[in-house]
Amino acid sequence: MLGSTHGTLSTHSRPARVVACGEQPPHTAHGPVAPADGGRPGPAADRDVSGRPLSAAVPDLDRFFRPASVAVVGASDSEGRPHTGITRQLIAWADRVGARLHPVNPGRRTVFGRICHPTVADLPEPVDLAVLLVADPVPVIEQLPAAGVRFAVAFASGFAETGADGAAAQERLADAVRRSGVRLLGPNTNLNAFETFRDDLDGPAIALITQSGHQGRPVFALQELGIRLSHWAPTGNEADLETADFLSYFASCPEVGAIAAYVEGLKDGRSFLLAADHAARRGVPVVAVKVGRTETGARTAASHTGKLTGADGVIDAAMRQFGVIRVDGLDELQDTAALLARARKPLAEGVAVYSISGGTGAHFADLATAAGLRLPVLSDAKQAELHQWIPGYLNVANPIDNGGHPVGDQRGPKIIDALLDDPSIGVLICPITGPFPPMSDKLARDLVAAADRTDKLVCVVWGSPVGTEEAYRNTLLGSSRVATFRTFGNCITAVRAYLGHHRFTDDYRSPFDDAPRTLSLSAGKARALLRPGAQLSEHAAKQLLRAYGIRVPREQLVTSAAAAVRAASLVGYPVVMKASGPQLAHKSELGLVKVGLTSASQVRDAYRELTGIARCEDVPLDGVLVCQMIERGVEMVVGVTRDSLFGPTVTVGLGGVLVEVLRDAAVGVPPFGEEQARAMLGALRGHALLEGVRGAPPADVDALVEVVLRVQRMALELDGDLAELDINPLVVLPRGQGAVALDALAVCR
Amino acid sequence: MLGSTHGTLSTHSRPARVVACGEQPPHTAHGPVAPADGGRPGPAADRDVSGRPLSAAVPDLDRFFRPASVAVVGASDSEGRPHTGITRQLIAWADRVGARLHPVNPGRRTVFGRICHPTVADLPEPVDLAVLLVADPVPVIEQLPAAGVRFAVAFASGFAETGADGAAAQERLADAVRRSGVRLLGPNTNLNAFETFRDDLDGPAIALITQSGHQGRPVFALQELGIRLSHWAPTGNEADLETADFLSYFASCPEVGAIAAYVEGLKDGRSFLLAADHAARRGVPVVAVKVGRTETGARTAASHTGKLTGADGVIDAAMRQFGVIRVDGLDELQDTAALLARARKPLAEGVAVYSISGGTGAHFADLATAAGLRLPVLSDAKQAELHQWIPGYLNVANPIDNGGHPVGDQRGPKIIDALLDDPSIGVLICPITGPFPPMSDKLARDLVAAADRTDKLVCVVWGSPVGTEEAYRNTLLGSSRVATFRTFGNCITAVRAYLGHHRFTDDYRSPFDDAPRTLSLSAGKARALLRPGAQLSEHAAKQLLRAYGIRVPREQLVTSAAAAVRAASLVGYPVVMKASGPQLAHKSELGLVKVGLTSASQVRDAYRELTGIARCEDVPLDGVLVCQMIERGVEMVVGVTRDSLFGPTVTVGLGGVLVEVLRDAAVGVPPFGEEQARAMLGALRGHALLEGVRGAPPADVDALVEVVLRVQRMALELDGDLAELDINPLVVLPRGQGAVALDALAVCR
Repeated sequence: MLGSTHGTLSTHSRPARVVACGEQPPHTAHGPVAPADGGRPGPAADRDVSGRPLSAAVPDLDRFFRPASVAVVGASDSEGRPHTGITRQLIAWADRVGARLHPVNPGRRTVFGRICHPTVADLPEPVDLAVLLVADPVPVIEQLPAAGVRFAVAFASGFAETGADGAAAQERLADAVRRSGVRLLGPNTNLNAFETFRDDLDGPAIALITQSGHQGRPVFALQELGIRLSHWAPTGNEADLETADFLSYFASCPEVGAIAAYVEGLKDGRSFLLAADHAARRGVPVVAVKVGRTETGARTAASHTGKLTGADGVIDAAMRQFGVIRVDGLDELQDTAALLARARKPLAEGVAVYSISGGTGAHFADLATAAGLRLPVLSDAKQAELHQWIPGYLNVANPIDNGGHPVGDQRGPKIIDALLDDPSIGVLICPITGPFPPMSDKLARDLVAAADRTDKLVCVVWGSPVGTEEAYRNTLLGSSRVATFRTFGNCITAVRAYLGHHRFTDDYRSPFDDAPRTLSLSAGKARALLRPGAQLSEHAAKQLLRAYGIRVPREQLVTSAAAAVRAASLVGYPVVMKASGPQLAHKSELGLVKVGLTSASQVRDAYRELTGIARCEDVPLDGVLVCQMIERGVEMVVGVTRDSLFGPTVTVGLGGVLVEVLRDAAVGVPPFGEEQARAMLGALRGHALLEGVRGAPPADVDALVEVVLRVQRMALELDGDLAELDINPLVVLPRGQGAVALDALAVCR
Repeated sequence: MLGSTHGTLSTHSRPARVVACGEQPPHTAHGPVAPADGGRPGPAADRDVSGRPLSAAVPDLDRFFRPASVAVVGASDSEGRPHTGITRQLIAWADRVGARLHPVNPGRRTVFGRICHPTVADLPEPVDLAVLLVADPVPVIEQLPAAGVRFAVAFASGFAETGADGAAAQERLADAVRRSGVRLLGPNTNLNAFETFRDDLDGPAIALITQSGHQGRPVFALQELGIRLSHWAPTGNEADLETADFLSYFASCPEVGAIAAYVEGLKDGRSFLLAADHAARRGVPVVAVKVGRTETGARTAASHTGKLTGADGVIDAAMRQFGVIRVDGLDELQDTAALLARARKPLAEGVAVYSISGGTGAHFADLATAAGLRLPVLSDAKQAELHQWIPGYLNVANPIDNGGHPVGDQRGPKIIDALLDDPSIGVLICPITGPFPPMSDKLARDLVAAADRTDKLVCVVWGSPVGTEEAYRNTLLGSSRVATFRTFGNCITAVRAYLGHHRFTDDYRSPFDDAPRTLSLSAGKARALLRPGAQLSEHAAKQLLRAYGIRVPREQLVTSAAAAVRAASLVGYPVVMKASGPQLAHKSELGLVKVGLTSASQVRDAYRELTGIARCEDVPLDGVLVCQMIERGVEMVVGVTRDSLFGPTVTVGLGGVLVEVLRDAAVGVPPFGEEQARAMLGALRGHALLEGVRGAPPADVDALVEVVLRVQRMALELDGDLAELDINPLVVLPRGQGAVALDALAVCR
């Protein structure tokens, strides 16, 4: 499926500013590959109705990671100076990757025996990359375009990570970078991009993106266990190049099998989504730790990188929508990325669990099934085949218990091959909890040999806490075809991510392809109803919904008792009457709602009572609503909230009193399509309510989905002007009868 | 807190049949220690109203694990015979532990040079332990009492694990064991009890209980990482001695710091609870993997050990109530048991996270806080103290980021001591994700040295996936005071369990002390209402509730329209009328409930309508209930279900239509007290409903708790006769106004 080692090295001789990676055929055939434009945001035409871009700006970073020539500004060879060690490492790295390195320092004639140039203007050739070891990079950056430099790295700290003054300094730096046309990594970054990557390992590699060098270290150390790493982008403060840029670039590199990311804060929501979309279209898995599950974590992360950490639930939803696999621990990041980088496409979704102990098989199967993996019961024929080699009293239905002994002789490989040969099985997992060299060493060798003969995934859990055993260190880690884990949990997490990733990309259709580019007719009508900075009355908010084709009850706004009676007969009895005014929330609690009115006299009385209460409470009204009464349906809530990273988001959940108690809601980050809207409903704990309980008919889910999509459209079209929208309750009627917004609240920006 | 190495070795010379371990002072001062009675269930007087025992039968197993003399029945030294290897291992073990070993085999004169006796009757001395290497252990077991043998182990397989025939054979074996008075381990067990336990390790040990040898192996292998193991009980099919026996015995052994258990199925619920209670009273932590999260796992586990696996939610609740720490993976079992065995009692609950990287600290803090650990913000004075050694721009509020450099010089130990010196901090965690020998080796040494100077817990996460590093293998694993982990997740799981364990045992009051021993007056009244095998009418079920002091609406059962009108005026308008009959469920759906009746004529009409529907539907009625109408309150459900392991259990949850949709319920396993009943309410997702939402007043939680406790009492007193009880809804009125059972369903056994 993926290219072999050194795929990018051949791009060294290509002309500058060509997206070499982007030219490779995409990993999957879905959707067009986003056009590369040199790395700056796309043209204005390629934007949605909210003005946000619709395709990833994939930067060409070939010459960043594999430059032909490098300048080190501030290079030093004086012992004891901090830049001396860095200079030494950069020289060693340049020698390794075959780049010409030019020291730059006005105070020196040579550095480590190389000619040192006073300024970048004095460089003997245009260089691909300038490494800036200077406290204030701005003056140097201003000189770079004239020197023909395309990329720069700034190590200096003291920017956004230190507070308001630093943030202002970073803004000045970012301005200078924008003006220069140079692409910058940093500030506050480090040498990780220029580490020693092992070149003796085969197969697809992991590309690593981290906002903290220390946190990337254990992923990088996977090289020592035989897992290939191809790139490491330590993004630092992201004054220019950000996580999303590396994500889309790495997804375009043929040698990259998976991208592992450690993210503390995102610079921009949309660019992240577009990068994830770019990876999803190409079938490249992205596994990410995103700090910020709790406020404490978020607070600390913000102070570390100087960027806002978005609300975690929204991040979670965004990642899920675009197929980014979120994990909690660095160990899960390592194990999941390593599996996804190297495993071929699954030939079946069934998992076989094979063990020398019934207890081990039962335990693993229990955890795997609870996590959603499917262990198909093997066919009678397959079980009979296995019982040729496994005693009849042992369970081979799946999990398969061989009782131990067959491992030791010629039966061992036959059993493994028979399992891998089963068409219902795509993944064979062999948990070895108790290493017992006479058995487990042979078992490990047999599994490695079988993995070399099959296109199916073979996983081993080496459960010994010791980890110095020969079978683990040499046999298992020595294989690039067997995926080896240390715990049941990480194996299950990784295999679930593997199967989920392929299911996701097989079905993937980019929502950006269908995102609205032009305003609908609704937008004009709706915008006329908005009042900047104000909360609309219920009546006006419902007009907004009507503008987007969302059904509201038949209702009339009246300003006299007589008009109320006329309205009631037009609306049809029984009616509901509600006070309507621009600052009204919590009407029920104030007694400003009357339900089940069945006669003109009740309507007249209700009118007097509602206006009387409003007078007493000093609540300004624009009138009283006389509404059709909707009695039967499922109460939901649908709303729009603005997220600081992603802009407007759409929430759907159980409505009525349950909103506050159960907080059973799902969020969607635009753009999303019908499938995703349905998935949001499926994610609700109480979604059975929509299927009909206690004899209630199934609710009109199609109508609910339509409302969610129309609300999304409204949120995007009115993005600049609508701060908040809540439809609560949206009553979803029985199937075929639609959904009706009984109450609505809208706040303008 | 605990004894030192070799604590039990001194018991070798004690007279037989004394519970040596039970004589040690209990770990905590709560409650009396259950009397030891030689290991058989307690006397009839020490039973609760349901006839279940109220104290653990703690067997004296000193001479099982440390016998003075052993007979090996079926011993062999012929090469190639399976018993030969076992005999060899037993001889080596007996030599190690100083036991005299006597081979028994009618076909041999000597075995490995030792005199071999034809039968156990020919043994030269009464032996403590007979190891039975025979296919049918029954005939030998019958000879053991006469030979003065106290304990036996049966390795033979082919019993309950193989199906119905095997289960019958096991029952015959169990009968023979009961008659003999010998305590038996097995059948279908192995040599794990007689492994080589390292005697060069200090401090409290882990005692291990497993139902599968293979699954215990990685825990046992902790010895190779410097963690002391004291015992291993491979319980096999548990024809006699069961997990609970070893649990309570190990909890009585002074050298045991924690018990680690791998459980596939429990033999008896009550004996497990009593053993867990015994451990909780003594403050000995129990960490357990219990297979059976899913049906697949449970199915396989049942076929593996031939025992019923109880419903998982009930197991989970039982473990939580009695402080058993349930974990999912064997890696978590190892890491949690190792920490709990060795860590001293916490001096504070606050956790400090100290790292050489702000990113690492933020990430760890995020996960730790999400898991419920508390990271107190350090005082200004403490932060100022830390800033003597850590640059001012780094965050030291907690997590504490030292930026790396201070680790390398004399500041390193000062920072660690300053953190350990903070009174708000009980646990110091240092995650080292990127090993960098110049820094991390010194940091590891400093942490080990500091841990030796403090009573507080010091944890290190060595995040490198390689694991062969010197600092990890020698420095960290070489310390018995530093708890070393490989992943953030396992460290957080273990520390949470550690703090939770001490919180639990500090507050522990055994519910067995307060369990009812004699029938209440209610029981007699209630029993008169029961009809064996039948479902009671709503009216009768409510009488049952009234017998236990649970409030029901004012109501009368009437059999004429005129009586209904009279009843209504006694009950007070408005009234509810419901058909009442012995086979009625789902009354609302049949139209057999009328609410809000406000006049005699409405009551008369309703009576005719209800009896009419019942006639049409052919539903036999015992009359019509005229009930007080209760309009305002929170609808809950409270019920009794029988669990195959634990007997009656009490469930409480959100009632009404939500029961089916949200399945938001908590279960309590008797006996439990008021605290536990409150904890059940707190565990409900929707518990905020009881606190009052949208302006509703807080509900009468005290009354709800009282109902739960009265239902528990009823469940225990009517244990043999009541199959099922459901109060739905139980309307919990505003605080001070009580709770009313609006409807009830009772099924008799």
